[in-house]
Amino acid sequence: MSDYSIGVDLGGTNLRAAAIDRAGKMLNKISGSTPVLAGRDAVITDMVRAIETIRETIEAGLGGHRLTGVGVGIPGFILMEEGVVVGAPNLPDFDNFQVRDEIEKRLGARVILENDANSAALGEKWMGAGRDVDDLVLMTLGTGIGGGIIIGGRVLHGHLGMAAELGHVTVVPNGYPCGCGNVGCVEKYASATAVTAMAQLLNLGEGLSAEDVFKLAAGGNERAKMIFRSVGTSLGTALANLISIFNFPLYLLGGGMLGAWEQFRPAMIQELERRSFTFRSHPPRIERATLGADAGLYGAAYLSLQAES
Amino acid sequence: MSDYSIGVDLGGTNLRAAAIDRAGKMLNKISGSTPVLAGRDAVITDMVRAIETIRETIEAGLGGHRLTGVGVGIPGFILMEEGVVVGAPNLPDFDNFQVRDEIEKRLGARVILENDANSAALGEKWMGAGRDVDDLVLMTLGTGIGGGIIIGGRVLHGHLGMAAELGHVTVVPNGYPCGCGNVGCVEKYASATAVTAMAQLLNLGEGLSAEDVFKLAAGGNERAKMIFRSVGTSLGTALANLISIFNFPLYLLGGGMLGAWEQFRPAMIQELERRSFTFRSHPPRIERATLGADAGLYGAAYLSLQAES
Repeated sequence: MSDYSIGVDLGGTNLRAAAIDRAGKMLNKISGSTPVLAGRDAVITDMVRAIETIRETIEAGLGGHRLTGVGVGIPGFILMEEGVVVGAPNLPDFDNFQVRDEIEKRLGARVILENDANSAALGEKWMGAGRDVDDLVLMTLGTGIGGGIIIGGRVLHGHLGMAAELGHVTVVPNGYPCGCGNVGCVEKYASATAVTAMAQLLNLGEGLSAEDVFKLAAGGNERAKMIFRSVGTSLGTALANLISIFNFPLYLLGGGMLGAWEQFRPAMIQELERRSFTFRSHPPRIERATLGADAGLYGAAYLSLQAES
Repeated sequence: MSDYSIGVDLGGTNLRAAAIDRAGKMLNKISGSTPVLAGRDAVITDMVRAIETIRETIEAGLGGHRLTGVGVGIPGFILMEEGVVVGAPNLPDFDNFQVRDEIEKRLGARVILENDANSAALGEKWMGAGRDVDDLVLMTLGTGIGGGIIIGGRVLHGHLGMAAELGHVTVVPNGYPCGCGNVGCVEKYASATAVTAMAQLLNLGEGLSAEDVFKLAAGGNERAKMIFRSVGTSLGTALANLISIFNFPLYLLGGGMLGAWEQFRPAMIQELERRSFTFRSHPPRIERATLGADAGLYGAAYLSLQAES
C-alpha cells in the first residue's frame, strides 16, 4: 500500500495532471487544453474528469495505491482557508467562486489550491533543483514573471495569498509602465515580452519572438546580445535585493527564458557582484530550475502529501 | 515561581540590559556605556557583571523568579549554531570569537545571540506594535538602516544569519555609492545620514543634524520639507517591493528618524499607492514601532522564553 497524490496544473491554455507517489515518482501524467470558452463549469468538469481518469488508471493497477489528496495550481491569488481564487483573469468566472469545495464535492477527495508559481517553487524544492535545501526563491521568466518563495520547506503565502509577486518588484524607478500600475517592474525588463519589446526598439526585425531574438544573439548579433545583457542586469538588480532580504542558499530561475541562460547569466552575475556584498562574500547558488513545466505538477501533488506528513 | 529572561543590547556605544518576565513585564533595567577601548575581555566582563547585577536584584526579591536564559542583541551577523558574531566592526575583536560560549561559561546560564535589528523586530512582535500579528517587517531608520523580518513569530535568519539587510536594497539603480559596494541603497536616501547629506546638497546650513533639518521642515522651510518628501519616496519604493515579496499584514518603521514621521509619511504613502497594487487593493498596516530603544531588550529577552516554549 503506497500513498500517492494527484497534482493539477490548471492554466488558461493547458490543463495537466499527474499522479505522483510519496517518493516523488511520477506514476501517470495526462494533458489537454482548458475549455475556457465553454465557461467555468466546463473547466471544472474537465479537470475533475482528468483527475478521475488518472485515479482509475492508478488504482486499477497493482500495488493498492491510496490517494492522499489532490493539489491544484491556479494562476491567481489563493485565499487558502476559504479555498477561493481571486485575480484569475485567465480562468472564466473563477474569481470568488468556491472552487475547492466544488472540486472536493465532485471528487470525494481532499483538495488544496495553490498559486501556480508557488506550486512550481514547491515542486523544485521537493524533487527539483532545491531538493537539498529548505529555503529558496524561484523566479519564473515567461510571458510575465512569477515567483514562489519556500521557507522551511513550505510556501510563503503572506496573509492574503499574495506573497512572492516577484515580477512586480521595481528595478527601474522611472522605467516602463506595467499593467499593475507601477513603472519599472522587473517583468517589463526580463520577461519574454520584454525581450520582444527591446527587439522592436532596436529594429531587430518584424514580429520577432523572444526565441527568434535568442537565436540572433546565439548567432552573434550584437544588438540581440545587448538585449540579453540588459535582461541579465535587471535580473541581477532584483536578485541582489532578494539576497539582501532573505540570505537564502538558493535562488532559481525557471520558465521559457531559461533557453537564454548563457546569454543573460554573465551580466546577471556581474550585477550581483556589483550590488550585493552578501553575494561577494558568501555567494548563494543562482541556478536553473530543473523540472520545467512539470514543476507545478510536482508541487501541487506535494501539497497534500506535505499536509498529511 | 515565575520565569523571567534577561535581554541585553550590546551596542558599540551603550550597553543595556533588562529582566523581563514571561508576561512581558519589565522587572528591572540598567544601562551604561560599552568599554570598547578597553578591549573585548573588558566588554564581556562588563556585560556579565550587568547581567549578574540584574539577576541578583531580581532573585533577592520576593516571588522566586527563575531565569530561563539570556539573549544578547549585537550589531553584526550571528552564526546561530556556532554562537559567533561576524561583521561587527563596532565591537573590539568580536569577529569569529566564541562569544556565546564565553558568556555561558561565565554566567552558568543559557545564552542566545541575535542581531540587534532582528531583536528589535522580535521585541515589537512580542510586546510592541506587532503584538497581534505573526508576520512583520521592521525597518530601523537611524544613522544607517537596519532591518528585521518576523515570520510565523520567529526571526528570519537566512542560512548565514545575514537576512533582512534592508538598508542595502537598491532604490536608485545609479544612485549614490554605499559603503557596502552597491550604489543607490535605501540607506543612502532615507537614513539620518542621508538627511544631513541632502541638507548639505541644498545649502541648508553648516553642520546641521538630521534633527535640525527636521525642525526646519516642521517650521515650514520648503527645502527641508523636500528632503523628507524624498525620504518618504525612497522608503515607499523599498516598502512596495517588500509588500510584493511578503504580503505581510504589518510593516513597521523605527529608529531616530521616527520623529519626522509626519514629514515623510505622505510621500511614502503616495509612492506605495503608485507602486504597489497590493497596497492599493489590500493595504497592509504601515506603522511606527512603539517600543523605541527598548525593542531590542524585549526581543533579546524573548529569545530564551521562546526557545523554552
